[in-house]
Amino acid sequence: MGSPFQNIEGAVTAPRGFRASGIAAGLKPSGAPDLALIVSEGDAVGAGVLTTNQVKAACVTYNQKILARRQPLRAIFCNAGQANACTGEEGERNNAQLAYWVGEQLGIPAEQVLTASTGVIGRQLDMGKIQAALPQLVENLSTEGGEEAARAIITTDLVTKSIALETEILGYTIRVGGIGKGSGMIHPNLATMLAFLTCDAAVEPSLWQQILKQAADLSFNQITVDGDTSTNDMLLALANGKSGIPTIQPDTEAAQVLAEMVNTACIHLAKAIARDGEGATKLLEIRVQGAADDAAARQIARVIASSPLVKSAAFGNDPNWGRVAAAAGRAGIPLDSRRLEICLGDFLLMQAGMPLPFDRQAASEYLKGDPVIFTVDLHQGSGQGVAWGCDLSYDYVRINAEYTT
Amino acid sequence: MGSPFQNIEGAVTAPRGFRASGIAAGLKPSGAPDLALIVSEGDAVGAGVLTTNQVKAACVTYNQKILARRQPLRAIFCNAGQANACTGEEGERNNAQLAYWVGEQLGIPAEQVLTASTGVIGRQLDMGKIQAALPQLVENLSTEGGEEAARAIITTDLVTKSIALETEILGYTIRVGGIGKGSGMIHPNLATMLAFLTCDAAVEPSLWQQILKQAADLSFNQITVDGDTSTNDMLLALANGKSGIPTIQPDTEAAQVLAEMVNTACIHLAKAIARDGEGATKLLEIRVQGAADDAAARQIARVIASSPLVKSAAFGNDPNWGRVAAAAGRAGIPLDSRRLEICLGDFLLMQAGMPLPFDRQAASEYLKGDPVIFTVDLHQGSGQGVAWGCDLSYDYVRINAEYTT
Repeated sequence: MGSPFQNIEGAVTAPRGFRASGIAAGLKPSGAPDLALIVSEGDAVGAGVLTTNQVKAACVTYNQKILARRQPLRAIFCNAGQANACTGEEGERNNAQLAYWVGEQLGIPAEQVLTASTGVIGRQLDMGKIQAALPQLVENLSTEGGEEAARAIITTDLVTKSIALETEILGYTIRVGGIGKGSGMIHPNLATMLAFLTCDAAVEPSLWQQILKQAADLSFNQITVDGDTSTNDMLLALANGKSGIPTIQPDTEAAQVLAEMVNTACIHLAKAIARDGEGATKLLEIRVQGAADDAAARQIARVIASSPLVKSAAFGNDPNWGRVAAAAGRAGIPLDSRRLEICLGDFLLMQAGMPLPFDRQAASEYLKGDPVIFTVDLHQGSGQGVAWGCDLSYDYVRINAEYTT
Repeated sequence: MGSPFQNIEGAVTAPRGFRASGIAAGLKPSGAPDLALIVSEGDAVGAGVLTTNQVKAACVTYNQKILARRQPLRAIFCNAGQANACTGEEGERNNAQLAYWVGEQLGIPAEQVLTASTGVIGRQLDMGKIQAALPQLVENLSTEGGEEAARAIITTDLVTKSIALETEILGYTIRVGGIGKGSGMIHPNLATMLAFLTCDAAVEPSLWQQILKQAADLSFNQITVDGDTSTNDMLLALANGKSGIPTIQPDTEAAQVLAEMVNTACIHLAKAIARDGEGATKLLEIRVQGAADDAAARQIARVIASSPLVKSAAFGNDPNWGRVAAAAGRAGIPLDSRRLEICLGDFLLMQAGMPLPFDRQAASEYLKGDPVIFTVDLHQGSGQGVAWGCDLSYDYVRINAEYTT
């Protein structure tokens, strides 16, 4: 890939000055780990991108307030068992209580703790179980705990998702770590996307937020499993400066390199989430180029990646350019269909808006691979964008239709 | 239902002064009827609502031009076998040629003929077969031909869709007839929505277009099978005045009654299309009320009706209020989740944003029925809207993933 960043071990505890842990409090019927904690040794700059769903879990509205204070933060606490969404004022009080308890255990103010939840919605948190487990969670905090935390935030994900990258900036070794969870479903519930990043650079606060938002737009906002956006989706990031680098300022080369590294980490996690979509048998990567601008390209890529017809065709190994063209056409972006060009891998399926003869057998063989890459060229500008999704399989329907009452 | 309109027989030939026919030209491998023609005895006022997809079939761009002339029209000609989309200039020439041939057979100018196509995209029309079949199609025209035309426009629809309504306006008997086709799929192809209306009222042209557009917004634009919009979607309507009624003018009571009748016809066809969605086992009706305005309510209803999670839950008979709430929340419409109320049939599932205890077994039994009605109340205004969809079944995936190369 020619990435200028080194892949390293450690997930969110790869950057210096971070400890993490993950244990089971008994919120999941399976008894799998369900509480995760990420703690910075010293004050960290926080940033967050939170769900745009109008129905927001208690942790979302809580984090909005905490992040709006623009004060130093220390910890991210996550439970993966109960979403604490659609739980009213009692849910809000419970969430604030959790932050208070975590702060108490860590010896820091509650206002330095971000919270996250995923799981069953519409039920009040089992506060007793969480309170009982907190001392152990804090005791387990370790500079090796990144993967443990990664395991504790997943629900029905088939695999954990983590990343750690390293590079030199201005002579300092800078690390970014991340963990994520994707499209698992706990009945009667929603797919929630969570991702937590850590970084040992010192970063000017508004720059850190801007870097995170931009990374989200290139990664998590470009993946889709079924178009549904959860009440609990969030991306949180802490930067604690423990690398020793002087505070990175906006509009500098250092800021650009850091942004690139955060983008790379987020895209890695986002692709892992898309690949692990419910019932998915393959990752779809939709590359759009030649658009009027990047935003237009990203929008078209997203619509194609979320088209049930395109997703079904991918599952069926059907090189169906017509569905890709039609999805591109309904993205709300003006395009000249007479210039449209579509490739599947190296197979040129359509040019100048008209289908070309191609080796259907070979193209279908290509579709059996993973990932499957469609490239759509609008030939009207230099805007480009990528989106990721997965195929739509019988298992998606089975998982989501399963009788739960 | 308390509808003020009489249901009558005859589909598009129920209104006076219309003849129709449908025959097989051999475009479909099955040999089923694939050409339909609807002709008005005299000049008719035309109106059309055409796909907003940027990739438009030749018939769409052709009709845009014809309708923009605002001249009297006489006929609608449809082939259901070849979409004539993604076929470049040759496709455009072929479409114009078809209109010319039809006009020639009928003894009218080509500019009085609207065209429609559905079927395989990316292939040139089989002009020879169509030309050979045209004399028979014209010979078969009959005032009893409405249902024949309804049969000839469907593709993989399981049932034909037609309607005819009658009422008195200003002492005149006014009739509206309609036929439609829905979400069938011909590989490698797209679901296309077609609907053709006839009416024997005389209507001021801009009013007729306004009535049709409004009806489309309340009906065809509120149905979804999988969110994909075709290159060929269109709704066309002819009003020929053969009832003898003086021309109905805008802002009159007569206009309002006529609009209601067209709405009723379109909603009937739209629901029939949604119910016949690929793999569908039941119709979903999503009623949204208490929104700031009707447009907001319609938008939310549409998003819920198209949520794969909601659709899968319906297939699985799972009374999953959480998925309905989350879909409502991501519709891009501000809402106060603390006021949200959700009913499934008569079961109150959520109130004031929080789930209520309900009889899950009985609710699940209700979900096995058809239609399934969700009512969502935002409690923030008086806006209301309805959308229709179908459940997401294994068969949807099977039909759309089927290996075609």
